[in-house]
Amino acid sequence: MRYFIQFSYDGTAYHGWQVQPNADTVQAHLDTALGMLLRQPVRTLGAGRTDTGVHARMMVAHFDTETEIDAADLCRRLCRMLPPDIAVSRVVPVKSDAHARFDALSRTYHYDICLVKNPFRRRFATRIHYTLDFERMNQAATLLLGTHDFNSFCKRGTDTHTTLCTVSEAQWMPLEDGMWRFRITANRFLRNMVRAIVGTLFDVGNGRLTLDEFKETLRAADRCAAGESAPAEGLSLVNIEYPQDIFQ
Amino acid sequence: MRYFIQFSYDGTAYHGWQVQPNADTVQAHLDTALGMLLRQPVRTLGAGRTDTGVHARMMVAHFDTETEIDAADLCRRLCRMLPPDIAVSRVVPVKSDAHARFDALSRTYHYDICLVKNPFRRRFATRIHYTLDFERMNQAATLLLGTHDFNSFCKRGTDTHTTLCTVSEAQWMPLEDGMWRFRITANRFLRNMVRAIVGTLFDVGNGRLTLDEFKETLRAADRCAAGESAPAEGLSLVNIEYPQDIFQ
Repeated sequence: MRYFIQFSYDGTAYHGWQVQPNADTVQAHLDTALGMLLRQPVRTLGAGRTDTGVHARMMVAHFDTETEIDAADLCRRLCRMLPPDIAVSRVVPVKSDAHARFDALSRTYHYDICLVKNPFRRRFATRIHYTLDFERMNQAATLLLGTHDFNSFCKRGTDTHTTLCTVSEAQWMPLEDGMWRFRITANRFLRNMVRAIVGTLFDVGNGRLTLDEFKETLRAADRCAAGESAPAEGLSLVNIEYPQDIFQ
Repeated sequence: MRYFIQFSYDGTAYHGWQVQPNADTVQAHLDTALGMLLRQPVRTLGAGRTDTGVHARMMVAHFDTETEIDAADLCRRLCRMLPPDIAVSRVVPVKSDAHARFDALSRTYHYDICLVKNPFRRRFATRIHYTLDFERMNQAATLLLGTHDFNSFCKRGTDTHTTLCTVSEAQWMPLEDGMWRFRITANRFLRNMVRAIVGTLFDVGNGRLTLDEFKETLRAADRCAAGESAPAEGLSLVNIEYPQDIFQ
């Protein structure tokens, strides 16, 4: 039987989602806890990966087990067993060929920034010390909409057969207390893509880059074209959409 | 010249507000930073004290200086100099006899709780693992309104000439994501008072205490009467009201 597991985490203390040798990762905690509860080795497969320090308000992974399980009970026990910075919200049965990564229709990320010092948001938002023109940043963000080659906003060494992505939503919006949020949805994201986009939008917002230059960066489809990546702490994966028919 | 300084802090890492030997306190950081900027020893006087691990969204202190200062500039420099978990939002001149503690008309506290595990709120909310009847808790909270002797909800060894307080607001309200907030406003608070009240309201909410027993606890005015104090992390000082005429 295959299950989807939906969870969230404060990524501050972790070397990202994906298991790697000699590093504390969210997947390592999840697999270990699941393995103890199901009394068998479990290897989850995530909808994507998040880098060191990046958060997830909603992340999804799938796993297989031959053990008969009460999904709601497993969810509760798993949530109790995991450290305070990881919470499991749902465990649901899916069709045997459902795939957390390949079946995802879209992902949504938030990038939060603070324009004033805020002791309560510093783990989940990036502090910006310069002035930003959000109207110009939104004009640039609009250029991202649609299907483009995002090679300019992709980390070197990514092994992916295509760098085409379709962006359906890309907008800065004000929050309370001098905070702003960039919300972006796409069918897929390349490695480091959101942070490279946000970093380049900062360049547009503070006048280092004109709108035409931003357009040129996108069109260049060249891995050296984008600005510096924005820091990890402001970034959160917040939603993943799946077709309804994969659920049992 | 006397100034009021308004600031906020994440209290997680501090032994409360007030300076004490061999302990890291918010006041120690503030006094040191002010002293460096004004090139003279400065001793602030706070509107009240917060205990170890308690937060403040809005705290006020006053200080005196003979140095001519640009208040807005001092505010910016102070904020930059202080650690990331303390932020200064205002420095304003006040009348020479204005007093951060004695002139305060009222204080408001929030006590936030999470009924579901939440990786993003754990520093600023207390995780509650049992079921609570918020309707009953609000019936009990209503009994706190008005002027009462709050000796039952006061820490032993408090040196105060009176334990009479006037509560003008005391209510639980739902927030998003399975969170609830207790908001309480009074002209003054005794030591440990909010946490003792919240702990006793938990007893009402989970059935360990009836409404009549709660009423009796309040009426007893006895320092052993209240329930266990609620943990520090859920508590934040959020507002202090002053009369307008103390500002210059």
